[in-house]
Amino acid sequence: MSHRLKLGMVGGGQGAFIGAVHRAAARLDGDIELVAGALSSTPEKSVTSGKELGLADDRCYPTWQAMLDGELARPADECIDMVSIVTPNHAHYEPVKAFADASFHVILDKPMVNTIEQAEDLVRTVRKRNVIFAVTYNYSGYPLVKQAREMICSGELGEVRKVVVEYNQGWLAEKLEDAGQKQADWRTDPARSGVGGCIGDIGSHCEQLVSYMTGLEVDSLCADLTSFVPGRRLDDDANLLLRFKPIDGAQPARGLLYASQICIGGENDLRIRVWGTKGSLAWHQEDPNQLLVHRLGKPDQVYRRGNDYLCDAAKGATRLPAGHPEAFLEAFANVYAGAVKAIRAGAGAQGPQQFDFPGVEDGARGVRFIHKTVESSTSEAKWTRL
Amino acid sequence: MSHRLKLGMVGGGQGAFIGAVHRAAARLDGDIELVAGALSSTPEKSVTSGKELGLADDRCYPTWQAMLDGELARPADECIDMVSIVTPNHAHYEPVKAFADASFHVILDKPMVNTIEQAEDLVRTVRKRNVIFAVTYNYSGYPLVKQAREMICSGELGEVRKVVVEYNQGWLAEKLEDAGQKQADWRTDPARSGVGGCIGDIGSHCEQLVSYMTGLEVDSLCADLTSFVPGRRLDDDANLLLRFKPIDGAQPARGLLYASQICIGGENDLRIRVWGTKGSLAWHQEDPNQLLVHRLGKPDQVYRRGNDYLCDAAKGATRLPAGHPEAFLEAFANVYAGAVKAIRAGAGAQGPQQFDFPGVEDGARGVRFIHKTVESSTSEAKWTRL
Amino acid sequence: MSHRLKLGMVGGGQGAFIGAVHRAAARLDGDIELVAGALSSTPEKSVTSGKELGLADDRCYPTWQAMLDGELARPADECIDMVSIVTPNHAHYEPVKAFADASFHVILDKPMVNTIEQAEDLVRTVRKRNVIFAVTYNYSGYPLVKQAREMICSGELGEVRKVVVEYNQGWLAEKLEDAGQKQADWRTDPARSGVGGCIGDIGSHCEQLVSYMTGLEVDSLCADLTSFVPGRRLDDDANLLLRFKPIDGAQPARGLLYASQICIGGENDLRIRVWGTKGSLAWHQEDPNQLLVHRLGKPDQVYRRGNDYLCDAAKGATRLPAGHPEAFLEAFANVYAGAVKAIRAGAGAQGPQQFDFPGVEDGARGVRFIHKTVESSTSEAKWTRL
Amino acid sequence: MSHRLKLGMVGGGQGAFIGAVHRAAARLDGDIELVAGALSSTPEKSVTSGKELGLADDRCYPTWQAMLDGELARPADECIDMVSIVTPNHAHYEPVKAFADASFHVILDKPMVNTIEQAEDLVRTVRKRNVIFAVTYNYSGYPLVKQAREMICSGELGEVRKVVVEYNQGWLAEKLEDAGQKQADWRTDPARSGVGGCIGDIGSHCEQLVSYMTGLEVDSLCADLTSFVPGRRLDDDANLLLRFKPIDGAQPARGLLYASQICIGGENDLRIRVWGTKGSLAWHQEDPNQLLVHRLGKPDQVYRRGNDYLCDAAKGATRLPAGHPEAFLEAFANVYAGAVKAIRAGAGAQGPQQFDFPGVEDGARGVRFIHKTVESSTSEAKWTRL
Repeated sequence: MSHRLKLGMVGGGQGAFIGAVHRAAARLDGDIELVAGALSSTPEKSVTSGKELGLADDRCYPTWQAMLDGELARPADECIDMVSIVTPNHAHYEPVKAFADASFHVILDKPMVNTIEQAEDLVRTVRKRNVIFAVTYNYSGYPLVKQAREMICSGELGEVRKVVVEYNQGWLAEKLEDAGQKQADWRTDPARSGVGGCIGDIGSHCEQLVSYMTGLEVDSLCADLTSFVPGRRLDDDANLLLRFKPIDGAQPARGLLYASQICIGGENDLRIRVWGTKGSLAWHQEDPNQLLVHRLGKPDQVYRRGNDYLCDAAKGATRLPAGHPEAFLEAFANVYAGAVKAIRAGAGAQGPQQFDFPGVEDGARGVRFIHKTVESSTSEAKWTRL
Repeated sequence: MSHRLKLGMVGGGQGAFIGAVHRAAARLDGDIELVAGALSSTPEKSVTSGKELGLADDRCYPTWQAMLDGELARPADECIDMVSIVTPNHAHYEPVKAFADASFHVILDKPMVNTIEQAEDLVRTVRKRNVIFAVTYNYSGYPLVKQAREMICSGELGEVRKVVVEYNQGWLAEKLEDAGQKQADWRTDPARSGVGGCIGDIGSHCEQLVSYMTGLEVDSLCADLTSFVPGRRLDDDANLLLRFKPIDGAQPARGLLYASQICIGGENDLRIRVWGTKGSLAWHQEDPNQLLVHRLGKPDQVYRRGNDYLCDAAKGATRLPAGHPEAFLEAFANVYAGAVKAIRAGAGAQGPQQFDFPGVEDGARGVRFIHKTVESSTSEAKWTRL
Repeated sequence: MSHRLKLGMVGGGQGAFIGAVHRAAARLDGDIELVAGALSSTPEKSVTSGKELGLADDRCYPTWQAMLDGELARPADECIDMVSIVTPNHAHYEPVKAFADASFHVILDKPMVNTIEQAEDLVRTVRKRNVIFAVTYNYSGYPLVKQAREMICSGELGEVRKVVVEYNQGWLAEKLEDAGQKQADWRTDPARSGVGGCIGDIGSHCEQLVSYMTGLEVDSLCADLTSFVPGRRLDDDANLLLRFKPIDGAQPARGLLYASQICIGGENDLRIRVWGTKGSLAWHQEDPNQLLVHRLGKPDQVYRRGNDYLCDAAKGATRLPAGHPEAFLEAFANVYAGAVKAIRAGAGAQGPQQFDFPGVEDGARGVRFIHKTVESSTSEAKWTRL
Repeated sequence: MSHRLKLGMVGGGQGAFIGAVHRAAARLDGDIELVAGALSSTPEKSVTSGKELGLADDRCYPTWQAMLDGELARPADECIDMVSIVTPNHAHYEPVKAFADASFHVILDKPMVNTIEQAEDLVRTVRKRNVIFAVTYNYSGYPLVKQAREMICSGELGEVRKVVVEYNQGWLAEKLEDAGQKQADWRTDPARSGVGGCIGDIGSHCEQLVSYMTGLEVDSLCADLTSFVPGRRLDDDANLLLRFKPIDGAQPARGLLYASQICIGGENDLRIRVWGTKGSLAWHQEDPNQLLVHRLGKPDQVYRRGNDYLCDAAKGATRLPAGHPEAFLEAFANVYAGAVKAIRAGAGAQGPQQFDFPGVEDGARGVRFIHKTVESSTSEAKWTRL
């Protein structure tokens, strides 16, 4: 067995949602051990949260700066190998920049940062330091998303003509930010969440899923963002028309992307459908172990996780036999598993391509997408170039 | 039992699709008898088609003009009561105008006519002659569509915030019009189909379904129409953003409407979802006997056709007990059934409102929608007012 | 166009359910005209019901005997061609026997009769008179049931190993027979319904569906019938183990058949699954336009009605294009359509085989099945031979 | 944070399936650390497997006896707290007995042991030593199974009338045991698997699920077991009629239980449906995040995991928000989580009741069920008392 990698975490203390997910994902395969943390922006809470998680006293740091200094002061074989940054969006850039500059590997929640300039700076930093850098666009970790990608990119469905991706949630249908709900509070606050509300929080997952699954690049977009809940300071609903860049002179693909947090009944209802000249497919995050495939003139097909007929990428991302459902956590853990392999292989900035996980370029493209969508929404012009 | 109504038909002879559907729908409840026909634009074929259907020799007319004259020459109690016009779009206006002007009741396939001027003229004609005029927007005939309408319009789901309606077909993914397929031939020909291809053929059903189910009016739209199949002369794919008119000063509803005939795997995949401030619902034409309903904070619900808990409109549009599925034909026949009731009641131009079927105003709104969508698609401006 | 066949009906007057279904099914294709009726066992009601349906006064008969006499007295070209018997079970045998003996073609509701002796007598009568005789086991009329039959009987799924057929209804979960509900009243009354309650009413559909789809013959069965509702006089729940006759020395197939009328939430929930040595399939009556198929080691398949890849029998039983759902009524009408073809072809007792509809032998086998199930249920022995 | 519990494992080394599942389940919540193992019946492989998993060299034991001795020789605060036994069935009894007798807590895979005598002996041992003893009937760990149990046992669905539980797999449709497949090899070998094949391997899960969800006790059963694959030495298909013990003089509930490993297309297709006098529910393991509920006369309901309207047991067994699907692993881990809580609380033999996980009595009942099913299958008598 390989040496277990040592992980530090920034953010994700008491009351956080995504921090616990990151920890469980890190733990799932037994390859990573959480050893240090600066788990809150409040120093006392940071330390208390670390102790609750069973961290050694001297690795329950009050701030991420203290963690950076403290870990660098340790002998190389005791120091953390990697850091997970799971703070609200506005608090991503500084610690990520500092840890990457100090040559630590980084796992970062999406959206990557709040400005295009910060995003470009991180791209440069990662290339310069040659560290492993993963952005937890977790939905691309699902085995059948990888199967879909393989089928599309190998040309099995012909040239892509149309893509519809949607992400419907209902949890912000009422003004939860006024009710002291922590998740709602920061996600609807421009100072912490950035220029996008719904479009940043979940629309960015849609953009990445399309990019990952189809390889298509958005050429231009036409956006209509709305804040339905009175008094809400960021969009809670986003509807976009997409035009993709042409490939080999064919008619360019078109698409729709829509995301909402006011769609009552939507839990985490992310769906994608892709139609090509020879066939089509559809995948639904809440029913992730199957992939619907249509081929021109043939009976519909349902591909199911865990079967021998799947591609290597789908089989490699699977832990349990067919019929023993896997779900959100395993997909999330696949981002960590890719990063672990890349770190062990010393893949550096080539990690995402070689080990199939979302990297800093994906993160930067996502930040640009959010900003251009917001720009389009207030523009009188129909199309905004990306 | 009431007297059976006597029906004449224009179009729908040999090789037609929708003519046979109209005849089966007319026959379903035993209230209508087909007695006369001018079933083709080719006089010989028209007569032959009539004989094949068992019409009396002297009522197998070579042309619709002959049928109009012939029937008017009969004694009142032998003459047809109503006429169904099921020709390609470009051949709607003239016979409809003539029969309505002669005070016959009319059942007409959608889209109603090919120009806004013709549409407005028919509105005036129907009002003037006070005849029953039904447009076979057949999807509004489904019982659970009526249930949805009732739940939305009564406020059970609160104020509507968002509507997504889609209609995905794949039958034109290849260039069938070059293969001698009759349906593909005229539907992709601007001279017969009008300015819209896919948007006219099926997008117009989407528009009517939203209007019928929600009562919302489109304020402005932003359309992206595409002809994916090389050489095709009309759009085969349509993606629209919608903004609806505000109601009582609330945040106006937004929507997406998309329709396509190049979506391989799509058969007749019409779906609508409506989200309000208190709940939401979803209906799918290929699975028409159920309606998904979500209410804030409650378990999902599935309303099923034929049950006592449904509203009167849904119960009244049902022929079989729960679990004995009804489908396309029964819904189509419900338009005829509404028209029959209206004729028997002498409801005149008030028929659609009183007996719940689509009328000439619905048809005219649909024609306008098609034209404005085509206009928007070539416009640089983001929003086109309806 | 061929001459329209003239139909008489026995039973199915005011308040009946299945009579209206038979009439709509007869009307659907425009090949049959209802011209005479003895629609109730009460003479006055019989005549009134006929008038309500628009029958000529002199063909609104007070009794079926009067109808038989009256029609025989007419000129051959005016007399009915066929008769539909849609009375409660106990009132099947006499009119069926009399009309068949007079060489009328017969359409009869299931179960055919209430004793094995009557059933055998009808088999002899039909052979002797060489009439067309159809039993409305309507579920075998669905296109995808025919597709399933073709796939199984052609060996595409290998040798059948296991069959599970089930039919879950909930409408008798309470004691409706005490509430004056007409359907519940006679169906729970041994004097009218026969020895079986649920097993006769819907279990018999299960038996026929297995027989039709697989061609397997039941060798022996083990039944557990229950009357759950206190005071009910017939079974309202049936659970059976089945052993089928061996084919070519292979391990004989096994099966389960269960039916119930106390299963709350079950509307008309008839499902069948068949597993062979190479694959399997599943079909559900409430979702009748699709057939799930599994082949060893391959992705699941979904066959959908109306597509070119289906077998001729499935395509021939279809009226509408794919995606325009067909349902209960069309399947029911397919039994009538088969009988019409057989009558026109003069197929006589060979009609069911040649034109693919359930005949008198199917009816007789069903009666025997009901009796043997009741016998098994009270037996201490595990297996009862059929 | 509480002290992490130290776990030893017997079985589950190289090539095993369920061992890895147990380890991931133990790891999921961060409350258990695997520190010792005797992972194979082959001493060398046992040691190698331990090293591969990163265990300390002196805790990679060649045999379970050595592990028992070695751990007992350690200081109390370093010794393992609990042991997981994940060997094939025939190798359960001896180590379980020995570890429980030495007062270690035990997690054991199902079926518990191969004879009724061994089962009864373990019941006595657990009571005597007052240890925590969990049997990994993992399907009862799903949140919506707990919701179902709550709804049934609280009377929300009225008195239970009928239960249908089924478990369809297809992986043994061919003779895999001849192809060197390790799982197939021992599971079809009476010397290792015990008297039951399919009925022991997966039928026992069915029995436990019914018992857990409904609280009903089987009174008598009628079984038909088959070995479909030529040459197979144990059953690969099981069909049972069930009669349950009466409750309060009501009509006793009836049921069907069927399980198979030759059902091609079945992956891990475990389903249960329960009908009561007021309503019913249905749950499917491959789609575990939803529970279908029907209440007399009301629209169907779909309860979904992660929502506030669920009962405490369902909410307490959930880690992720609604819409972020959980699956097999989380349910499996819930058995471990219950045992951890029970150990920390010092609950002893009362652990299963207090902390909601399957215990030694459940295991013993399952062993008895397997034996009685096999007895019934070869009996001429219809009913075999349990």
